[in-house]
Amino acid sequence: MSNESIITAMAKAARAASREMAACPSRKKNDVLLKIAERLEADAAHIKDENQKDLAFAREKGLSEAMIDRLVVSDQTIASMTQGLREVAALEDPVGAIAKTWNRPNGLEVSKMRIPLGVIGIIYESRPNVTIDAAALCLKAGNAVILRGGSEALHSNQALAGVITRVLSENGLCPEAVCIVPVRDRSAINELLIQDEYVDLIIPRGGEGLIRFVAENSRIPVLKHYKGVCHVYVDDGADMDMARQICLNSKAHRPGVCNAMETMLVHEAAAAEFLPAMARQFEKAGVVIKGCEKTRALAPGAEVATEEDWPAEYLDLVLAVKVVADMDDAMAHMARYSSSHTEAIVTSDYARARRFVKEVDSSVVLVNASTRFNDGGQLGLGAEMGISTSKLHAFGPMGVEELTTTKFVVFGQGQVRD
Amino acid sequence: MSNESIITAMAKAARAASREMAACPSRKKNDVLLKIAERLEADAAHIKDENQKDLAFAREKGLSEAMIDRLVVSDQTIASMTQGLREVAALEDPVGAIAKTWNRPNGLEVSKMRIPLGVIGIIYESRPNVTIDAAALCLKAGNAVILRGGSEALHSNQALAGVITRVLSENGLCPEAVCIVPVRDRSAINELLIQDEYVDLIIPRGGEGLIRFVAENSRIPVLKHYKGVCHVYVDDGADMDMARQICLNSKAHRPGVCNAMETMLVHEAAAAEFLPAMARQFEKAGVVIKGCEKTRALAPGAEVATEEDWPAEYLDLVLAVKVVADMDDAMAHMARYSSSHTEAIVTSDYARARRFVKEVDSSVVLVNASTRFNDGGQLGLGAEMGISTSKLHAFGPMGVEELTTTKFVVFGQGQVRD
Repeated sequence: MSNESIITAMAKAARAASREMAACPSRKKNDVLLKIAERLEADAAHIKDENQKDLAFAREKGLSEAMIDRLVVSDQTIASMTQGLREVAALEDPVGAIAKTWNRPNGLEVSKMRIPLGVIGIIYESRPNVTIDAAALCLKAGNAVILRGGSEALHSNQALAGVITRVLSENGLCPEAVCIVPVRDRSAINELLIQDEYVDLIIPRGGEGLIRFVAENSRIPVLKHYKGVCHVYVDDGADMDMARQICLNSKAHRPGVCNAMETMLVHEAAAAEFLPAMARQFEKAGVVIKGCEKTRALAPGAEVATEEDWPAEYLDLVLAVKVVADMDDAMAHMARYSSSHTEAIVTSDYARARRFVKEVDSSVVLVNASTRFNDGGQLGLGAEMGISTSKLHAFGPMGVEELTTTKFVVFGQGQVRD
Repeated sequence: MSNESIITAMAKAARAASREMAACPSRKKNDVLLKIAERLEADAAHIKDENQKDLAFAREKGLSEAMIDRLVVSDQTIASMTQGLREVAALEDPVGAIAKTWNRPNGLEVSKMRIPLGVIGIIYESRPNVTIDAAALCLKAGNAVILRGGSEALHSNQALAGVITRVLSENGLCPEAVCIVPVRDRSAINELLIQDEYVDLIIPRGGEGLIRFVAENSRIPVLKHYKGVCHVYVDDGADMDMARQICLNSKAHRPGVCNAMETMLVHEAAAAEFLPAMARQFEKAGVVIKGCEKTRALAPGAEVATEEDWPAEYLDLVLAVKVVADMDDAMAHMARYSSSHTEAIVTSDYARARRFVKEVDSSVVLVNASTRFNDGGQLGLGAEMGISTSKLHAFGPMGVEELTTTKFVVFGQGQVRD
């Protein structure tokens, strides 16, 4: 069989399975998720054996140590997957919830009912744990899922998905509710992206190259996250200690992630008090500062910032710093360079806090808190499928509710239109 | 200047204007909408003159009478546009509304605030009234809009958009909040569809060919509506008079629109009582029936239905009719042939009503009411931008709220992550 027919057949089967998943009661879905966790623990040895095949192949191909490291399925990886499954099982089921309801003058009762999306395609790189994490969230929301992991993780992903499909079968559900694309060939991705008749949503997870490729080639709606160029603006009159703690946490707590601060903006009236002590704290934490001229006058160790630093996502212990005239200047800088991911203000001014929250156009806008809180778990959504920086359907962290949509339900007593 | 640079420059200008629109207070937006209505009335003569140029060109090109009819801007068209503007002005402003709010154990206050989408591109055919209707809804929701109407309506659309941009300017707002693509060349559409850096959403309105072209070529998220193959299922034990009124209204009230019934499914135990009188009513209304064998036994005037009739969108006084074994059979037929637009059941059975509502996968599911109620106005959303049959972001009629998204807003007192 050609790739074409494999992918089309898979998409059709997933579509059929999605109808069954949509009608599956919460208790059964949760039960299946807990059984998958048990089975992962029981099958750990087999999964690690399959993972060894991928690791051997990766070493043969000469992949970098960092890439190989992300491929490893250890006992710790399995423990993290089973914990994730149990957390997702414990989440509230969004399906069937009535989002709102109202009556019409002619007596019609109208409501919006939350329903699954249908079939979700996930295209991801490397980390095999995504296979379990993504499948768990999709199943919880009553969807079927087609998983296309990195070709370098194919054995691991098939072993993990095999656990899921066996548990689905043993519990009388269609195993096609979770499908793994079985071919290493990249053309399978192109084939998946044109299955708009059967697939409702594509979520790419990985590097910017993969995400742009998917966005440019998909006929199916895509939820995506490019990058996080996150800003903290320190206002005149802010609590200076609070500001330094928030900035240090935003930059240095975990510099390699998308919600880490990349640029710090400081009101010029606060700079003389704020920056010297802040620079010393950053230096102690190993953070290299790239500053504007005014910054460098107050933080002598800082390197020179160039135009290239303002849109940079360093994902490292490097920070761009700029002294700005006021909050308007800070917001104009953000409007120009931010990636719409996360922006924070540290302020004690009521009116500016309100304006900042209202006018800054990012998926999460914070007052007096670290940018590191842009995270589904931290914001109380439970597990997350990533952070959307495009505005359609979901903007910000995507939890189980973002994997659903709503339909209109109308109850009448014989109404017709005049 | 090439098309490329015109469209890119327009998209950039619209993006800048969208930031101003996002911060524009409700009262000012409503005031501008009312002033546009007044100005349309005052400039009616000029608008009709410009429309004459399009009509002359259309006649010269030999367009069909139906196409020319849709192009006409009459006093009645203008009255309907001004009424629409006044209705949109009266709608509640969705921007800034807090969709929900909750607290985290660490004291963070989290909420989801409704915000404009940004820049919306509308690609439409023929009817110039869309220029006003679409612009009004987009502005109300705080967005900028790029309008690409049919090339045959360019003079009319430019005259109508000119009224809007003059009113925007006179009220101190960026006129670029409403842009008309000034070129007749179709390549302008391709150029618009790759402006994903500046445009947040594309809404195509027109024939299936246009919509498929946009869906296949857009890098920007698309909200679309292919077709309405709407079903009514008449259950065993339903009130027969109610069922006949609902079916007659669903089919014959306005057969050329997307929420008209195209296939009627009848429980076999109800067929003998229901169908003969129903067939007579349809005959009186000029409806041609294409029936299955059992239907034809009870409605002798019916033509033979073939496999091609079940997925057909007639948009005419033609109806496919099938006798089914039970509700499961009816739902299986819908799952196979429906376009996810609108399905209705007429029943007096509580459990079946509940199952139908839960399991039927369409944007609007009705019990004991006409399919003709799938309409933003009828369901209480106010004016609508069309009906989405894809599930992302909006599923069903799209009102002003569907032209917005939400961002997360977080208020803290210095919280950082451990």
